[in-house]
Amino acid sequence: MTYCVGLLVDAGLVFMSDTRTNAGIDNISTVLKMKTWEVPGERFLCLLSAGNLATTQSAVSLLDERMVAPSERQPAILTQPTMFQTAKLIGETLREVITGSSGPQCSSPMFSGSFIFGGQIKGMPPRLFNIYAEGNFVEAGEDNPFFQIGEHKYGRPIIIRTYDRSMSLADCAKLLMVSFDSTLRSNLSVGLPLDLQIYERDSLRAGLRTRITGEDPYYKTVSEGWSDALKNAFDALPAFNPDAWREHEEIDVGTQAA
Amino acid sequence: MTYCVGLLVDAGLVFMSDTRTNAGIDNISTVLKMKTWEVPGERFLCLLSAGNLATTQSAVSLLDERMVAPSERQPAILTQPTMFQTAKLIGETLREVITGSSGPQCSSPMFSGSFIFGGQIKGMPPRLFNIYAEGNFVEAGEDNPFFQIGEHKYGRPIIIRTYDRSMSLADCAKLLMVSFDSTLRSNLSVGLPLDLQIYERDSLRAGLRTRITGEDPYYKTVSEGWSDALKNAFDALPAFNPDAWREHEEIDVGTQAA
Repeated sequence: MTYCVGLLVDAGLVFMSDTRTNAGIDNISTVLKMKTWEVPGERFLCLLSAGNLATTQSAVSLLDERMVAPSERQPAILTQPTMFQTAKLIGETLREVITGSSGPQCSSPMFSGSFIFGGQIKGMPPRLFNIYAEGNFVEAGEDNPFFQIGEHKYGRPIIIRTYDRSMSLADCAKLLMVSFDSTLRSNLSVGLPLDLQIYERDSLRAGLRTRITGEDPYYKTVSEGWSDALKNAFDALPAFNPDAWREHEEIDVGTQAA
Repeated sequence: MTYCVGLLVDAGLVFMSDTRTNAGIDNISTVLKMKTWEVPGERFLCLLSAGNLATTQSAVSLLDERMVAPSERQPAILTQPTMFQTAKLIGETLREVITGSSGPQCSSPMFSGSFIFGGQIKGMPPRLFNIYAEGNFVEAGEDNPFFQIGEHKYGRPIIIRTYDRSMSLADCAKLLMVSFDSTLRSNLSVGLPLDLQIYERDSLRAGLRTRITGEDPYYKTVSEGWSDALKNAFDALPAFNPDAWREHEEIDVGTQAA
């Protein structure tokens, strides 16, 4: 499986992806699921992928024009006038790859894939999209300021409770480490290392990009510290008092005495 | 969907279940998914159900001998010599109901269901089981001291990080409220009110049984307090320092400058 998140905050965008790919529990590998493009001072784009790896890699290669010699590439993805048009191009490319593998009905979920896509083009605000296998997409906004793809459930509660549009980019990175750590502990098909990309609003260039392994001191601090922090938070909640509840009116609970 | 949890600790057993059932997003109802049996001083049994409601209700009715007039009932579930035998009876009953609806191959997931079953019989320790649609089951132990059925993912990280075999029964109840609250916030097919059953080891009688609504002051305190507690726990973790990470060796990340 996969876990990828893109967060939109006032200060910019933060992306994180895991690197595990598997063809069966006994056949796992590490693969990059985060691809970025940059024209310094003009645009920055980041794409996170989930689903069938052959599908998403093929779509990224097409977007990247890898069929052309590196010196001659002028990827269409870098020439779209707006982020919306860029998302449309990515969606169309993804759908073409899927229908090429599974036929025109997109009927086989086997070849399916999806993307989180975000970035900024000069003169326009940063934008974030969730692009589906069918080629259509939704955009992040005030009410849905982040997207998750892949194994999203374990790591969702902490994002829901902690996310705030005014968070710093560093706090976003910390939040994503906690969210990913919760997921890694419950689903073996999501695995370290993690790729992190920070984009500062209006910088129009790639910000910090790093790969986080299980040995990184900061990641270890977060992973171990979060268990203690959660236990302390739990202890700080008022205690449940069974005696107080006995006073509540009892409902008919169907307990049967023989 | 459904969310049910059974926790085994040194002090006894704690069970919680939600009450939402749905046949489509536009057709929801409240239903009891927790059934208990008690012979005071001799045994206490608790059964939590997930899956097709017609299947699980039918199995519970058969176990309860509801085809017999109430005064004449001597449910076989109350006459088994051990918890293992009782779990076996429940599993067989469940499988019979499912094959009765879907044919001998149990082929249709439509009629599927599963149970968490726990309790204690005099002279033996408390035991906890996860019973599958096929009629077989696994037992909780040192390494897997709790079971979840239904929508288990959102509420799992907090149990994994906080559970401790030496926890008090009251702390177990608090933990389950946090776990259920995280689930309720993310999946509409899990809904209030919640049913809680506490069983104190060697008491051999039903302990506190109560129904928790969204209006209960303690539940509201936990639900609202947990967001604040999580935020404080998050703030207490050391900050992510992008500058420290810039010093790391950069990997080849495939960023392309046009």
